[in-house]
Amino acid sequence: MIYFDNSSTTKPLQEVAESFQTVSEQYYGNTSSAHQFGLDAEKLLRKSSQQAGQLLGVGEDEIIFTSGGTEGNNLAIKGVALAYQNRGKHVITTAIEHPSVLESVRSLEALGFEVTVLPVGESGVLDVDAVSDALREDTILVSVMHVNNELGTIQPIKAIGQLLKNRAHTFFHVDMVQSFGKIDLSLNDCSVDLATISGHKIHGIKGTGLLFARKGIRLFPLFHGGGQQNDRRSGTENLGGIVSLVKAMRVMTEQKMHHPDHFRNLNHLMRIELESMDHVIINTMNDQADHILNFSIPHFKPEVVLHALEKRNIFVSTKSACASKKEEESPVLKAIGLPRNRTTSSIRVSFSYQNTEGEVELFTRALKKVIQELNKVMG
Amino acid sequence: MIYFDNSSTTKPLQEVAESFQTVSEQYYGNTSSAHQFGLDAEKLLRKSSQQAGQLLGVGEDEIIFTSGGTEGNNLAIKGVALAYQNRGKHVITTAIEHPSVLESVRSLEALGFEVTVLPVGESGVLDVDAVSDALREDTILVSVMHVNNELGTIQPIKAIGQLLKNRAHTFFHVDMVQSFGKIDLSLNDCSVDLATISGHKIHGIKGTGLLFARKGIRLFPLFHGGGQQNDRRSGTENLGGIVSLVKAMRVMTEQKMHHPDHFRNLNHLMRIELESMDHVIINTMNDQADHILNFSIPHFKPEVVLHALEKRNIFVSTKSACASKKEEESPVLKAIGLPRNRTTSSIRVSFSYQNTEGEVELFTRALKKVIQELNKVMG
Repeated sequence: MIYFDNSSTTKPLQEVAESFQTVSEQYYGNTSSAHQFGLDAEKLLRKSSQQAGQLLGVGEDEIIFTSGGTEGNNLAIKGVALAYQNRGKHVITTAIEHPSVLESVRSLEALGFEVTVLPVGESGVLDVDAVSDALREDTILVSVMHVNNELGTIQPIKAIGQLLKNRAHTFFHVDMVQSFGKIDLSLNDCSVDLATISGHKIHGIKGTGLLFARKGIRLFPLFHGGGQQNDRRSGTENLGGIVSLVKAMRVMTEQKMHHPDHFRNLNHLMRIELESMDHVIINTMNDQADHILNFSIPHFKPEVVLHALEKRNIFVSTKSACASKKEEESPVLKAIGLPRNRTTSSIRVSFSYQNTEGEVELFTRALKKVIQELNKVMG
Repeated sequence: MIYFDNSSTTKPLQEVAESFQTVSEQYYGNTSSAHQFGLDAEKLLRKSSQQAGQLLGVGEDEIIFTSGGTEGNNLAIKGVALAYQNRGKHVITTAIEHPSVLESVRSLEALGFEVTVLPVGESGVLDVDAVSDALREDTILVSVMHVNNELGTIQPIKAIGQLLKNRAHTFFHVDMVQSFGKIDLSLNDCSVDLATISGHKIHGIKGTGLLFARKGIRLFPLFHGGGQQNDRRSGTENLGGIVSLVKAMRVMTEQKMHHPDHFRNLNHLMRIELESMDHVIINTMNDQADHILNFSIPHFKPEVVLHALEKRNIFVSTKSACASKKEEESPVLKAIGLPRNRTTSSIRVSFSYQNTEGEVELFTRALKKVIQELNKVMG
């Protein structure tokens, strides 16, 4: 099997699954319990916060463990908006965010907020001047993703961070779900206030994730209750999930360090092959994230290509998983102004550290055959 | 080891842990993906919804899988309140609810809602007439727990359901976290509109749970995003967690059927022993839930008793886990009007199907010794 759909979800690593299992069996105490079982669990929780903080270069008290990327994005956006609405009710985001950001932001409109959704140009990269122009006295939050999930475009997080640095009343949230462990981002250098990470995109298990929230930032909780995680996210902590998430983060960080050119090599090889193919147009620009490569095969239904590849035991995706069943057009490709014959025919390949150059070669060979066959049928 | 703290959390069953592991490894596809991996995952998700629905006597489309009891309670309360606020902004609950209910309800006050928190009398059981008296034209939600987590009192869900049955504008939410699999409750006969279940209280894994929401009820989502679970709870589903939750629910249901007197027998035996002990006053009334037994040993600090028992490898709890580190007084015991020497000295024992009468005997023998020793020290 060749699994090239790692931006949808990843296979949990063996060691990550084992961490989960061990903790679930041996540390099942409630972190809020006063007996040793509870104290052991709490100790492990704290150690996990420390390690996650170290991996991100932030403090342990700046980590909030969540049930995943969608919760993290919702908590960041609604949490800040509801806590600081007396300061202002204006939020800025972009047209190419993940639905968990876009829909969270839009849900605020029902609560009286004004939302500016910035377009991105043909490049797929946000113009920092556009952010600057959109800023108002009452802007309390700017939310921009690091790496786009469909195209792989890298957004100018550092420049936006600099722009917002001296605006104490405007918080900066970054959705890092597609970038963590693949593209470096210093939360401190980039003056990021809130950042979302998802476990199942980095070979962790589903139902895990974290939100970084810089010290001092108040959040209106999505979950009120027993006051866990410094009152920012109540509910008995999923300790097995938390330990396994930190494990996945550590493994990804190490793999990035040891194989810095891994994704570039795969990307380069695939680009060369795709560029040589008739009918194929690459949508992802050069010099973007190497682990995501989006292309269109106009006039072929992407589902047909996907299933033809699937028969050859190769798994890719049409659009992002979250949008794949809904609209015919990719909202992201539409946002960068591509014509309809490309927005309705896109295929996304997304790599993991487990993928190999051999797999890329097998894939491109298979894709060529699929296109030939489909051409015959349609001929 | 004797583990009598099952209302704080439970040890995951072997078969539940295995379900989780198998699904995480073999069905790691994203339910939203268009390829076979995704379709297989989606099929399994649907089967899980069907099975959960069958176990609760409701439809598969009335099940929303969550990250646990706290999320379920928050989603029910905030979800209904924000979706129906145009109909009315009054919510009724009780003084003995779990913090995830009480704090959710209180958080609504900041959004302009009025909240009636009904007291319970000395019995610890809510008076249905009090609910009736509190109802107003603009009451959109009544939230009452089935079994109290500290005392084990059973609330009159059926009578409240009948009261609310013909009020199409008032929804009825029941926190079933402490009762599912132990005390029967027919969601249909009791006219319950929303009900919360937590996985880790029924030998499931942490980070799992579900909310039943009757067909047609709109919920303002806590998580906006990709539109999973019929737009009521976005985010990639934790399929391993979901399958393992349903497994735990099935096992609990079977154990209840096969061992209907299990908890009554343990409770009866322990009551007889505790009643014969000097210094011990039982707080849980007769004819309440048998799996929770709360008692006080006035003038002894409960932490001291807890740790003395712990040295004998016996685990109980002081108050509920969620409240155990915060206040000296048990808020629930205070709410039923117990004097301070009892509200500050309570011990909670909570049973599982794995506990035995032999363990109860060992426990009571140990407790007697602990009391004798502490008496000497304090003598």
